[in-house]
Amino acid sequence: MNLIQTKLSKLLSTAAAALLASSIANAGILPKAALTPADNLTTAEKVELGKQLFFDPRLSFDGTISCNSCHNIMSSGTDNRATSSGISGRRGVRSAPTIWNAAFLTALSWDGRAATLEEQAKEPPLDPLQMGMPSEAAVVERLNAIPAYVAQFKTAFGDKDAVSYDNMAKAIAAFERTLITPNSPHDRFLAGEKTAMSEQALRGKKVFEQSGCNTCHSGTNFAGPSLPIGQGFYQRFPSYSSEYNKKYDLSSDKGRYEVTKVKKDMNRWRVPSLRNVALTAPYFHNGSASTLDEAVRVMAKTQLNLKLSEQRVSDIVAFLESLNGELPKINMPRLPGTINNSLVSNMK
Amino acid sequence: MNLIQTKLSKLLSTAAAALLASSIANAGILPKAALTPADNLTTAEKVELGKQLFFDPRLSFDGTISCNSCHNIMSSGTDNRATSSGISGRRGVRSAPTIWNAAFLTALSWDGRAATLEEQAKEPPLDPLQMGMPSEAAVVERLNAIPAYVAQFKTAFGDKDAVSYDNMAKAIAAFERTLITPNSPHDRFLAGEKTAMSEQALRGKKVFEQSGCNTCHSGTNFAGPSLPIGQGFYQRFPSYSSEYNKKYDLSSDKGRYEVTKVKKDMNRWRVPSLRNVALTAPYFHNGSASTLDEAVRVMAKTQLNLKLSEQRVSDIVAFLESLNGELPKINMPRLPGTINNSLVSNMK
Repeated sequence: MNLIQTKLSKLLSTAAAALLASSIANAGILPKAALTPADNLTTAEKVELGKQLFFDPRLSFDGTISCNSCHNIMSSGTDNRATSSGISGRRGVRSAPTIWNAAFLTALSWDGRAATLEEQAKEPPLDPLQMGMPSEAAVVERLNAIPAYVAQFKTAFGDKDAVSYDNMAKAIAAFERTLITPNSPHDRFLAGEKTAMSEQALRGKKVFEQSGCNTCHSGTNFAGPSLPIGQGFYQRFPSYSSEYNKKYDLSSDKGRYEVTKVKKDMNRWRVPSLRNVALTAPYFHNGSASTLDEAVRVMAKTQLNLKLSEQRVSDIVAFLESLNGELPKINMPRLPGTINNSLVSNMK
Repeated sequence: MNLIQTKLSKLLSTAAAALLASSIANAGILPKAALTPADNLTTAEKVELGKQLFFDPRLSFDGTISCNSCHNIMSSGTDNRATSSGISGRRGVRSAPTIWNAAFLTALSWDGRAATLEEQAKEPPLDPLQMGMPSEAAVVERLNAIPAYVAQFKTAFGDKDAVSYDNMAKAIAAFERTLITPNSPHDRFLAGEKTAMSEQALRGKKVFEQSGCNTCHSGTNFAGPSLPIGQGFYQRFPSYSSEYNKKYDLSSDKGRYEVTKVKKDMNRWRVPSLRNVALTAPYFHNGSASTLDEAVRVMAKTQLNLKLSEQRVSDIVAFLESLNGELPKINMPRLPGTINNSLVSNMK
């Protein structure tokens, strides 16, 4: 292990450290399980509760939006929209990233503002453009009004202060750590199954690597090198100017600069994962590119100053399709009811 | 069998007729399976496809609303809102009825305008206030753009014209016929389990029957007598005038009159099922009553001209809670993707 990995492993449980070591041994292949923070070890009770909360629209003010509304794990882990639709049809300015394999990211959100899944899970309920709850206390009050949830929080977190905003986020994060899509054709190829990828996908892999796409889209998640939790891997986008800047409005959102207000972060973005990318159209932080082939053209030009032939574009697309993994089977959660009244009944 | 039942059974398959006979034998107890129309026999392939379609937000114009958005089968089969929220936060004027056990209704929607689940399923995708698709053709075009769906429609309906609006509705209806919640405490009580209901629920049952609530809320679904498919059981609401008319705006929506334009149908409504009613707050066609106890007070006054004591109200509520059934376990569907592009990507 290098210094960063040694430092990281101190933050993690022993089991997690073993996993870390195994993921290094299999560099490039998606691990079957994600690292778990020492202060939120994964348990079956937390995962089940987290799944219910992930699907529960009562975490939104008017009972219309759940985590799954924008990160749909029945399909791509996104809503496949340019930007998402929150309560009352309110719209944000950025495209929802996929939740699949987010467990392997060291910083969340397009601008890396959340260090962990736990931290990220606390944002959408309170965002007026997303779920619109007025306060953490209002969320906790609502959870406390659902008797079966109170019992489940106690089982998962112990009797003292079981129902809390932090524990809600911990349960959701524990569930999200199970959202892993292993065995993509490319993973199977790396594991030795030589026929797992098509000829075209193999050609695309070569073009992808020779063109330098993997300078940034490297590592297990094709989202950059392994970094300590909380440290994102950022790049300027666009790096080269072209007709695409205006066409897709690539520069008006300042990206990470909006978080840090440091000039060097202007138009810098967390490098997104390419796993399952063929399923997550439309593309870029603003969802401005409708198709994957166009996204490949734009990235080649704006990041590498390359104009790719159409053959190379479609070879790369074939390679990217080979990064689609297997979606795990999941039982539908049951959202516990409230007898006699509705928690969202008076919100017209 | 009486004349109506004999007539009905001619419309049904042999298996369905056997079921009908068994449901008559067990009058009051919810059958484990629903009658199936002869032109849409239930198959595993249809049910699976119907489940996917039921959860697929691509049936809505902007990819935000699925059948499940308003008829949430992770919980009460409703959205627990006064009125539902469609695309872009558009609002209708009536409360979404539960989809649980709708398979046993002979007319659907508050005003009975749909005779069958198949007919009902064709409405929301084209309703501008709900899913907002511009035409049946636009829905079919979108389904045809999802390769795995095309294959599944062929398996379920044969090769010829497999992907059609009618077949979409048939698949959804086939799935909906499986949405049955058996073994409520009241059902178990009727089946001979004498301790299945609490003392209070048993008292409530007596009050419910002696007060005459079961004049309308009769039969297997507590939604009226057995009738041929397409024939709804309607009642005027409110029947007696009271302070509640104004308080809950009970009369401004003309109900069935809006469908038939016949004067006798003014303010008449399909008698709703009481199964799982304790979970489906808020109440009435406009969702104006927030709690079940208040709904009981209002119904007693407006329909029976009775002012119930608070003890009797809470006894009836306890009885109604005993009509909550067991929600079946369901595997989460997988919504097939479209490689390279999103069908809803350009709908900002």
